[in-house]
Amino acid sequence: MTALQGLLGPDHVLTGDDAEPYLLDWRGRYRGEALAVACPGSVDEVAGVVAECARLGVPIVPQGGNTGLCGAGTPDGSGTALILSLRRLNAIREIDVENDTITVEAGCVLQAVQDAARAAGRLFALSLAAEGSCTVGGNLATNAGGTQVLRYGNARDLTLGLEVVTPQGERWDGLRGLRKDNSGYSLRDLYIGSEGTLGIITAATFKLFPLPVAQSTALIALPSLEAAVALLARARAGFGPALTGFEVMAADVLGQVFTVFPEQRLPFAGEGAGAAWHALLEVSDSESAAHAQARFESVLGNALAAGNALDVVIAHSDAQSQALWHLRESIPLAEARLGKSIKHDVSLPASRIADFVRDTNALLQARYPGVRNVVFGHLGDGNLHYNVARAPGQSEAALLALQPEVYRLVHDSVHAHAGSISAEHGVGQLKRDELPRYKGAVELALMKRIKAALDPQGIMNPGKVLQS
Amino acid sequence: MTALQGLLGPDHVLTGDDAEPYLLDWRGRYRGEALAVACPGSVDEVAGVVAECARLGVPIVPQGGNTGLCGAGTPDGSGTALILSLRRLNAIREIDVENDTITVEAGCVLQAVQDAARAAGRLFALSLAAEGSCTVGGNLATNAGGTQVLRYGNARDLTLGLEVVTPQGERWDGLRGLRKDNSGYSLRDLYIGSEGTLGIITAATFKLFPLPVAQSTALIALPSLEAAVALLARARAGFGPALTGFEVMAADVLGQVFTVFPEQRLPFAGEGAGAAWHALLEVSDSESAAHAQARFESVLGNALAAGNALDVVIAHSDAQSQALWHLRESIPLAEARLGKSIKHDVSLPASRIADFVRDTNALLQARYPGVRNVVFGHLGDGNLHYNVARAPGQSEAALLALQPEVYRLVHDSVHAHAGSISAEHGVGQLKRDELPRYKGAVELALMKRIKAALDPQGIMNPGKVLQS
Repeated sequence: MTALQGLLGPDHVLTGDDAEPYLLDWRGRYRGEALAVACPGSVDEVAGVVAECARLGVPIVPQGGNTGLCGAGTPDGSGTALILSLRRLNAIREIDVENDTITVEAGCVLQAVQDAARAAGRLFALSLAAEGSCTVGGNLATNAGGTQVLRYGNARDLTLGLEVVTPQGERWDGLRGLRKDNSGYSLRDLYIGSEGTLGIITAATFKLFPLPVAQSTALIALPSLEAAVALLARARAGFGPALTGFEVMAADVLGQVFTVFPEQRLPFAGEGAGAAWHALLEVSDSESAAHAQARFESVLGNALAAGNALDVVIAHSDAQSQALWHLRESIPLAEARLGKSIKHDVSLPASRIADFVRDTNALLQARYPGVRNVVFGHLGDGNLHYNVARAPGQSEAALLALQPEVYRLVHDSVHAHAGSISAEHGVGQLKRDELPRYKGAVELALMKRIKAALDPQGIMNPGKVLQS
Repeated sequence: MTALQGLLGPDHVLTGDDAEPYLLDWRGRYRGEALAVACPGSVDEVAGVVAECARLGVPIVPQGGNTGLCGAGTPDGSGTALILSLRRLNAIREIDVENDTITVEAGCVLQAVQDAARAAGRLFALSLAAEGSCTVGGNLATNAGGTQVLRYGNARDLTLGLEVVTPQGERWDGLRGLRKDNSGYSLRDLYIGSEGTLGIITAATFKLFPLPVAQSTALIALPSLEAAVALLARARAGFGPALTGFEVMAADVLGQVFTVFPEQRLPFAGEGAGAAWHALLEVSDSESAAHAQARFESVLGNALAAGNALDVVIAHSDAQSQALWHLRESIPLAEARLGKSIKHDVSLPASRIADFVRDTNALLQARYPGVRNVVFGHLGDGNLHYNVARAPGQSEAALLALQPEVYRLVHDSVHAHAGSISAEHGVGQLKRDELPRYKGAVELALMKRIKAALDPQGIMNPGKVLQS
């Protein structure tokens, strides 16, 4: 502790009440204990802290904005680990407008990076609900997804280079701003998504994109999830890469929204109002708002004519677009008001999604009659937030007591439909013990060999992703 | 050998003259010796061969279409290794049109995969000069690039899942068709680009895309390479992701083409004909050919008005497009006719390219007066083919004797400009001993630890990428 205080200054080694906010994850789901919270202010200080921990065999739990959903940033209860907070590493190191790249430190809040890019006339294309407080280091550690993956990819796809402090306290400078670089193993991709178990990402060089000239949104009423999948194919062909969002929402999910927020309503009458599913599409146009709307009219007109869609509303202003997105964004708020539910973050091949939802809904109803299936998500990426809410009259506690069984049922069904039990939130503590059931022995053994090779002492975020 | 023959059948273990074509790379640059060439016909047979080699400690050199440019598929001269040819693993296992994915075996020729996708109404977006004979396994082993990287990315970016046989002869089934999957370390990305040194890729699941409705091409005369970089930014903003190609060619490169193929000419008079640089742009449109041309007229009209371009020709038919691409495609043919040159496959940040070319041209002229700098490439990806051709009166042998020195000069300059000495061809044998000069000790040590963890016997493609 004295060594740490000497290294960082006494103000940047937190204990007692000061450490408290770092010990509990933001959903209040995981609470741990720690020796202290170290808050280094430079990469050299990060390396110094890690080298000291390596010397003493002290486990390290890296933490960014503490907005993770799987407990990867929270230590266990032993109190033997040091939390290493990256929040003070928050410099925008460089924006290279000509190369369309930005180099930032891990502790930068996502929104600050978006803002810096926009100020330079560029788009930083990672966007997700926690962007006001999550850090890009955490986004990289979990390979975060969000709402623009369909067009721009996950955090991984946006990253060109990394800077990493190894578990031995060495610094790897891999901050390359290159679109093509085939000079050895892709260490970058190994660290991305490794949730702090192989080293500490301290900075990254990201791709930037031109800002779209216009964005337009449409809401489409659909007879079935199969029709939504067919519409996705039609939209991909018709809009090409201009298609930047394709969200789906089941009717009972929107029903929840209207229960909690009675001032909201569907912009449809007749068939569209009673549709089983709705899709929200976003197109980003490099030409004009008028062009985006004309494309919507052409592509969605064809979908209506082909019986692919029941009804369509196209936003003709930013305000109308925002109103349509507001429906989608109200889902988690309505869910929260109606009580805790059992949440799944899963992905499936588009071709299997309708079967998965039908089969899994049926399995759940057979086993737990009356529970509500709250299904919505990023259909364009095959990513569903498949949540299970209380049956009428069921208590929150009674539902949550079923969580392990429901997880098992849903994840077994995901696996049977060739999907993944973690689409965009990672593994952390939450799904660590589920991995062996779905990964197979060879894949797990390969992961363990890599872990042992890069972190032979096992001090980096032990007990996350892999059993320690 | 008897064990192998028992495993594969005697027809599929080649020796003597039958093995000869596998011992020499297609450019005639590397020649090795081998115990035999094993040609397994299934993944189980691949696993069986590898397990047998692991038991006996026999090194394995995996080989696809034998079209590599850095010698990664050719054994050393010791004759102790087994060549493992993947060519018989050439099944298209599945096309999932609804999921926009294709699953193919490693030995499939790239063009066969393109054709299978097209027959299903989809685009497989990897395209490069050797596509008629290279295999997708080799494309993955080297993370191949090509002409559509600007829009669709490298082989890595097109890959969702892999099947791999480990150096222990185990089979990892990672053939997932998922756009989002954050459930553990990205083994996929570790194998991609590892050039057969960590295991053998036996199959892959790739992304497919909608076929573009129309493609259009334009040739632009430019006053300087700086103007080309400025035009790239303008084109990225103006066309958005519809921009699928952005190639540049220096005037003396086109001069070579016109010397060798006098029937070809530039479609410009006046200033455009004498321009220092030309850019070839391709736009893929999801709407119509007329829309693509109208966009060209708008965006390039603005570039002309702003003084960014000297002259512009827009193709108004597929035939005109092909004629413009023919200029670009004639460059390597003209080069070959004019004698061997010293070739570099490098990448740089767009913001450094003009400086790099000016500085490196000057260094070369100072050291080797009269040599010709043959500079062209995929500017949209920062990837230059920076070649050095004979000075007037210089013999081919005299030039090639300078190759080690010229490599050093050019690669040092690439490194000084924050670039990579291998953009899309890989490392293999050719650049293996250069890596330590440019990578730094930490990165090399990390690579070696991963190699030792996954291939502790060191039997997978020894002496490639890393020194063995």
